[in-house]
Formats: sequence, structure tokens, C-alpha cells
Amino acid sequence: MPGSSSDGTFTTKMKILIVGGTGTIGKKVAANLASRHEVITAGRTTGDLTVDITSEESIRYMFETLNVIDACICTAGTGYYGDFETMNAQDINTGIQNKLMGQINLVLIGKNYLSHDGSFTLTSGIAAEHPARNGSCVAMINGGINSFVLAAAQELKGDKRINAVSPGLVEDSRERYGAMFPGYNLVPMGKLINAYLLSVEGAVNGKILKVYS
Amino acid sequence: MPGSSSDGTFTTKMKILIVGGTGTIGKKVAANLASRHEVITAGRTTGDLTVDITSEESIRYMFETLNVIDACICTAGTGYYGDFETMNAQDINTGIQNKLMGQINLVLIGKNYLSHDGSFTLTSGIAAEHPARNGSCVAMINGGINSFVLAAAQELKGDKRINAVSPGLVEDSRERYGAMFPGYNLVPMGKLINAYLLSVEGAVNGKILKVYS
Repeated sequence: MPGSSSDGTFTTKMKILIVGGTGTIGKKVAANLASRHEVITAGRTTGDLTVDITSEESIRYMFETLNVIDACICTAGTGYYGDFETMNAQDINTGIQNKLMGQINLVLIGKNYLSHDGSFTLTSGIAAEHPARNGSCVAMINGGINSFVLAAAQELKGDKRINAVSPGLVEDSRERYGAMFPGYNLVPMGKLINAYLLSVEGAVNGKILKVYS
Repeated sequence: MPGSSSDGTFTTKMKILIVGGTGTIGKKVAANLASRHEVITAGRTTGDLTVDITSEESIRYMFETLNVIDACICTAGTGYYGDFETMNAQDINTGIQNKLMGQINLVLIGKNYLSHDGSFTLTSGIAAEHPARNGSCVAMINGGINSFVLAAAQELKGDKRINAVSPGLVEDSRERYGAMFPGYNLVPMGKLINAYLLSVEGAVNGKILKVYS
């Protein structure tokens, strides 16, 4: 980060990459951060850059293009939801290569392109603790991300930080996903955005920022 | 399970598969259970049966051989420990296909060979919550197993159960692994065995049985 202002207000302008910055959550996080930072969005097919998070080569190419950044947020990644009786290893592996390894690879590769006090913010989800029906694959992925973040926070060099935001059912996703999550409280988008801000602009490190209601 | 005795003591003899039953932990769990149950051990190269838990075909063949069982314990599975700076996706994927997907596949395939009130007991580990240096891959795997168990407990049909035992540094592993875990309390093997007994012979379901000291 270029440095802090002397009057105590937070004015440090950061260069922030948001992978998934064109999705439901990512675009609102991007809109908030863009008022005071340089925001670059990356998506699978749209965004300032395109990236396939299942490909190490694609991730590496993205970071090479960006050079040094101050924060990398990931709100991208999907995993299998479906009938437990018939779910098989291939269903699960697709999500592992996407939301789980995709985010881990963003860290393993991206750490070499992060400023000395930059941060990663990954996205897990409430399923890690409170899985819904049909959600055992996503539960596993989210639990894996949370524990990876605890460990990676100990390993990152210098003043680099890493956190996970763990969203519940976001109000903006109610129409699309609500029927899959009966009894889950809706999360106001403003609260969820705040968790990403806390991770990027705050000092927290190695935290699972749970936003469940 | 064939049924309970009428005098209230626990005498139901179960047919119990222990994958990893020839390893440090598994062989002691096997020795304890063998005093009152039929125990079948499976290992990669030794045991009553051999199985490669990275192969769905091998797992399916093992269960076909056994027909119906009352409990499946897994104490097998390895994941990458090593320098975070140089760790890459391939290092991690090896552990994903072994300890993580290996155990998940035991459940997804094995549930069709489990008696109506049978149980699965998987093994995660303290790294899910308290990762050691170099342990981010194993932390992720253990966290993934824990969350999978929470979800799978909701999904299994009938009276089937599933739990995870999460061991700390076991006293029997002190010589082999102790140097990797400075400051970790040693877990008495008797306490760890008890967690497996609680899962197999008790009524608990969807629990992470933490044995950290």
C-alpha cells in the first residue's frame, strides 16, 4: 500500500483485484471499494480481466498482467449441490478444482504478486458449519477453505494477511437460491460487504468472518 | 447390528471394517474392538484386505468382498506437509485424492454396504483448528472432512450414523512426528481409542470428536 494519510482518515488508495467481481456479491463489493480504490474485476467470461480459476496457468497470466496488487478478493467459485444418494467423486472433484483449489491457487500463485502488506480475502460459506440438505460437497469445500485460511495466515511472509468471509444466504440470492435453504436467515448485503471491507481495509488476519444473518 | 442383549450390557457383536487398521492408530483401535467384535483390517499393502483408498474401484471391490458391515472406521490417509512458499497444486491434490476424497468415497460407496443402523467413523485432525507450520494442506483436508461429516450425518438414511475423530499429536507418534509439532500436547492413546469406541458403539451422530490432549 502506498502509505497512510497524516490526518488519521483512511485514504490509502489500494489496487484491488476482485475475482468474481462481476457476480452477485462481487459486483456490490466492487462498487463499494471503487469509490476510494482502484478496483480490477476478473470473471470467467466478463470483467476487466477474464480468468479461469480452475487453471493455474490462467491465474498466473492474470497476476502477470496486473503486476503488484494490494488486495485480492475472491467471490468466485462453485461446488456441487445435489442428491447425496447418487453424488459421486466426479461431482465433488469438479467443485474441488473450482471453489476449493481455485481459491487456494489464487493464494499460492498470487502471494508472489501481493504488496508486502497486502491481503487475500477468500469466500467460504455457512455450509461449513450449518450445511443444508444436498450440501455435503459445498460444506466440505467451505470447511476446507476456512481451515486453509487459518494455516495460511501463519505462513504468509511480511505483513501479508488472509481472511475468509463466510456468508449465509444473502438477500440478493433469495430468489435464485432461497428454496434450497429453508429456515436460513437472509443476510443484508450491506453487512456482507462490511466483512469484505474489514478484511481488506482492517488489520484482521487469519479470521473466518461469519455473516450468517 | 444383530440386536442388543436383554440384560442391558453391551454385547452386540458387530462386523467392523477398519481401513488403516494396520497403522499406528488403527492397529490399537482394532486390538481393542477385536475383544468383542468381528474386526476386518484393510491397509494399502497389509491387513485382512488390501485397498487403495484413492481408487473408487478398489473401494468398491473391498465392500463387495465384505458384503454388509456394521461399522466402517477409517484411520488411513495422508496429506502434504511442507514449505508453504513452494507448495503447489499438485502437492495438495495428492492429499485431496488420498485422505480427503479417499474417506469421502468410503462413505459414498460404503453406505450401500452398511447395515441399517451402521456407522462411519472418519479421521480428521487438530490441524483443522490449530494448524502447525507447513500444515496448510492437511489443515484444509481436516477442515473439509469435519464439515463433510456434519452434512453427511443429515443425509444418511435410516439409523446410519457418521462422526469424525479429530486427533492431536498421539503419544505413539511422538518420535516420528513430534518435531513437526512443537508445543502440541501428547494425546494418550487410550483417550483416542475411546473416541473411536464412542463413535462406533455409542449413539453420537454428526459429531467432531476432538481429542487434542
